[in-house]
Amino acid sequence: MKRLVLTITCPDRVGIVAGVTGFIASLGGWVLEAAQHGDLDTGRFFQRIEVLADSLPFGPSEFALRFAPLAEELDLTWRLSDTDVPKQVVVLASRQDHCLADLLYRWRSGDLPCAIPLVISNHTDLAPLVEAAGIPFAHVPVVAGDTASAFEEICARFEDVGGDVMVLARYMQIVPPEVCERYAGRIINIHHSFLPSFIGARPYHQAHARGVKLIGATCHYATADLDAGPIIEQDTARISHAEGPEQLVALGRDIERAVLARGLRWHLEDRVLLNGTRTVVFP
Amino acid sequence: MKRLVLTITCPDRVGIVAGVTGFIASLGGWVLEAAQHGDLDTGRFFQRIEVLADSLPFGPSEFALRFAPLAEELDLTWRLSDTDVPKQVVVLASRQDHCLADLLYRWRSGDLPCAIPLVISNHTDLAPLVEAAGIPFAHVPVVAGDTASAFEEICARFEDVGGDVMVLARYMQIVPPEVCERYAGRIINIHHSFLPSFIGARPYHQAHARGVKLIGATCHYATADLDAGPIIEQDTARISHAEGPEQLVALGRDIERAVLARGLRWHLEDRVLLNGTRTVVFP
Amino acid sequence: MKRLVLTITCPDRVGIVAGVTGFIASLGGWVLEAAQHGDLDTGRFFQRIEVLADSLPFGPSEFALRFAPLAEELDLTWRLSDTDVPKQVVVLASRQDHCLADLLYRWRSGDLPCAIPLVISNHTDLAPLVEAAGIPFAHVPVVAGDTASAFEEICARFEDVGGDVMVLARYMQIVPPEVCERYAGRIINIHHSFLPSFIGARPYHQAHARGVKLIGATCHYATADLDAGPIIEQDTARISHAEGPEQLVALGRDIERAVLARGLRWHLEDRVLLNGTRTVVFP
Amino acid sequence: MKRLVLTITCPDRVGIVAGVTGFIASLGGWVLEAAQHGDLDTGRFFQRIEVLADSLPFGPSEFALRFAPLAEELDLTWRLSDTDVPKQVVVLASRQDHCLADLLYRWRSGDLPCAIPLVISNHTDLAPLVEAAGIPFAHVPVVAGDTASAFEEICARFEDVGGDVMVLARYMQIVPPEVCERYAGRIINIHHSFLPSFIGARPYHQAHARGVKLIGATCHYATADLDAGPIIEQDTARISHAEGPEQLVALGRDIERAVLARGLRWHLEDRVLLNGTRTVVFP
Repeated sequence: MKRLVLTITCPDRVGIVAGVTGFIASLGGWVLEAAQHGDLDTGRFFQRIEVLADSLPFGPSEFALRFAPLAEELDLTWRLSDTDVPKQVVVLASRQDHCLADLLYRWRSGDLPCAIPLVISNHTDLAPLVEAAGIPFAHVPVVAGDTASAFEEICARFEDVGGDVMVLARYMQIVPPEVCERYAGRIINIHHSFLPSFIGARPYHQAHARGVKLIGATCHYATADLDAGPIIEQDTARISHAEGPEQLVALGRDIERAVLARGLRWHLEDRVLLNGTRTVVFP
Repeated sequence: MKRLVLTITCPDRVGIVAGVTGFIASLGGWVLEAAQHGDLDTGRFFQRIEVLADSLPFGPSEFALRFAPLAEELDLTWRLSDTDVPKQVVVLASRQDHCLADLLYRWRSGDLPCAIPLVISNHTDLAPLVEAAGIPFAHVPVVAGDTASAFEEICARFEDVGGDVMVLARYMQIVPPEVCERYAGRIINIHHSFLPSFIGARPYHQAHARGVKLIGATCHYATADLDAGPIIEQDTARISHAEGPEQLVALGRDIERAVLARGLRWHLEDRVLLNGTRTVVFP
Repeated sequence: MKRLVLTITCPDRVGIVAGVTGFIASLGGWVLEAAQHGDLDTGRFFQRIEVLADSLPFGPSEFALRFAPLAEELDLTWRLSDTDVPKQVVVLASRQDHCLADLLYRWRSGDLPCAIPLVISNHTDLAPLVEAAGIPFAHVPVVAGDTASAFEEICARFEDVGGDVMVLARYMQIVPPEVCERYAGRIINIHHSFLPSFIGARPYHQAHARGVKLIGATCHYATADLDAGPIIEQDTARISHAEGPEQLVALGRDIERAVLARGLRWHLEDRVLLNGTRTVVFP
Repeated sequence: MKRLVLTITCPDRVGIVAGVTGFIASLGGWVLEAAQHGDLDTGRFFQRIEVLADSLPFGPSEFALRFAPLAEELDLTWRLSDTDVPKQVVVLASRQDHCLADLLYRWRSGDLPCAIPLVISNHTDLAPLVEAAGIPFAHVPVVAGDTASAFEEICARFEDVGGDVMVLARYMQIVPPEVCERYAGRIINIHHSFLPSFIGARPYHQAHARGVKLIGATCHYATADLDAGPIIEQDTARISHAEGPEQLVALGRDIERAVLARGLRWHLEDRVLLNGTRTVVFP
């Protein structure tokens, strides 16, 4: 069932919902899902509407053309997605395979609505896994500390394949600030702690040393300010005194892959809207 | 911030959202929250809209008057609540106090948006707890098996105080079918198992005997078919082989009171809509 | 760090722990972990002890020889495992691959302490997945209703490869009662509901029809009485009115594979002891 | 069923368990529960044993006398509790009542195995709640910043009533370092965040500003280093973009009281042993 997904953000005021839903109704559009949020802090309004494509008299480009004047009148920032056009996800990984393997499994089984035209890694360890899935693998080494040069190539390849989203599946390299800015809201990272706890290196070892009773993981958009990007999804799991750092690492892998998969799915379904340093995530 | 809460259900078709939100916008109404659901099985549509009362040119009764023609045109079943008019909750309890004490605490601390004009019990044990909270207590004994006579008095008292909702806070007596029908969607029960597991008596002992690894509780509307009513909320907690039935009962008390409090709050906030034998619960 | 794992069950009485730990101490054995449980219902005692192998003056067979007289004196049913000897797991699957793929991933990444000498299926769909992992795949078709003949071959192959555990990874066929009995406590099934809710076919559709607010999965030992076997592990996940049966199936896959992986790991680590129709699971 | 609870910590080495359980067995003692932990980082061993009091030929003081020589030989730090002698809990509160009310309810209903001889507050708001429960209330004001003088009186009163544990039930005042040291492992605090996230003031507002998707609470022993004490228990709850700081505060109250109640119960049952800046919590 092909759907058009319209996401909107604008300064909050009376009549936005009526205006937008009135426009859709005037075309005979069948609204399958709709969710909205008015943020009292920022005074901004957010909305996501799913319309059954077959209920409209024309396709997405004509819809967009006709919607544009209303959007301008209402001062909307908006985006229209077509569920028949899968987003292009480029995955960056390093040596650990748990997040990558999970994404590949979900993609292959139709559980993640996207295409994966390319996987990039600074090592070659994961090439067989990627190639077995029939996906091109690019080895882009990172010379110690110099991620800038590597990202020149990464970005070129990302553009080449028409990338929509870059997913850092335990990539372990810092994305240069200018890349974060260029692709704001389009680079998704999985951090292996319940942020803002245990920012930085070896969070499971930090967690063990602190003696916490739950560990967690955080899926967030990458920003220039490391590990401070807008959070999409988090989760935690219970641990006990009996688990050492290595066992936390092992347990954490399950949380990481689950949290990344959920965060990425919501992004792909246009459920995540940026609200400054936070996100609105429509269920 | 006084709000009007409009809930709607009707056969799903194009234009409902546009019609309703257009009406609200035409009055200058500020929509604070809106959620909707189209049920593919039943073909019914459900919506809940919160409007800032001060943004409207008149109060709830005038709003209702003006809304009625549109509602008829769109074939809506609808209800309008005013958040300044707390719902009247009559609590029925027996001898166990954990759910009742929790409800009283939450009511007293302003955590539950309701009034509690009366608590009824088939025993007198809980009278001091209720009276210490400044709430009238009625002792309506149940002669073994004959709940019908008791419920004649209970219903009379419920009507006397203008009751909106009857809450069975571990009341332990079966509500007569005709009472369930008269107050369909207005009697809330807490069952001490994760339904449909362990229907009937002594569910924690059943759970222990079966060796489950999680126990749970279920908040649901009472219906003539015992423990089969539409479910509002459920939750579970982890147990181990080390816990005997008595410990399950003790652990269960925490789940029961939490699940009942959540289910009741959602009902009071008009977030729960009946959909046949199921519910729609808007977050 | 090679360890010997001793598990014990016997009628509960004074002196068992002292006797067993005294024996281990007399050999200079270093106890890394120990857990016990006395069941008040059945009057039975359960214990699991991990001993550092290097701290003992001899290996497992000599340990067993010397332990036998004490075990007889104390009327113990006992088992000794060597963590350097991985258990042989034979996986049975049908057409769905999520549980199998997860087990293979965990096995390959060293996350599950076992060997997988064989995967058996009544279909050929999963052969490529299995063979890509370098594991022999056997196609044993099931003629409608006649699982008995199929299980003759399955059991023969299981014995051929020296199988310790049979894992039904969404195998979808009923195991004949005599097979359940022959391998009591050695056949692990994953059921796609929170048992005892929704026994039988299409549990997610049953769950949707009942309108529950959580779905779950159950890992249990297979017994002749379908879906009534001793439960090893269960878990649940929250759903809402918005999810249809297909989405429950999709969400359920994540719970199923997580619950099966945990249950199997605990079995492999000798943490699960049978206690009649229930289990003792030592953390 | 009266039980003696023996807790032990010592440098880890062979023979401790055998020695201790052998001693208990030699007296005919029936071990109901036993748990142990060897910490690889610190090289220390921890054990907790519950013995059925009636199975012993004499009472706790004689037991202690006879155990002492063995304890010295094995270099044990140990403690013996008698479940018939409830620990004396002095609660410190400020103006918020949710944690205090919950503790009082659990104490009254027999859910918490302790006595509460005194509640102390720097305000008088909660006096009626405390006195209605039949518990003495002491008002010990704190002159801005000078908690030292207040704690002189608090400690004197704590000693007067034979206090075993001081519980800071949202007390909101900083305990002077010398008091933390004097009562190391005996002052339990509930912090309204998932530590180490959001240390310090207004954690729910910090959490909202950071845009986290889960909030939490932490029960820990108070130490001179604020919010860095050994953690006993933590938990989290899911939130969404729709909840403002006030709603987080309200949701947080439920987590706080649940986490504090669990942490305190485990302390009262001698399940919590200090391991440097961490804890061992035996289930």
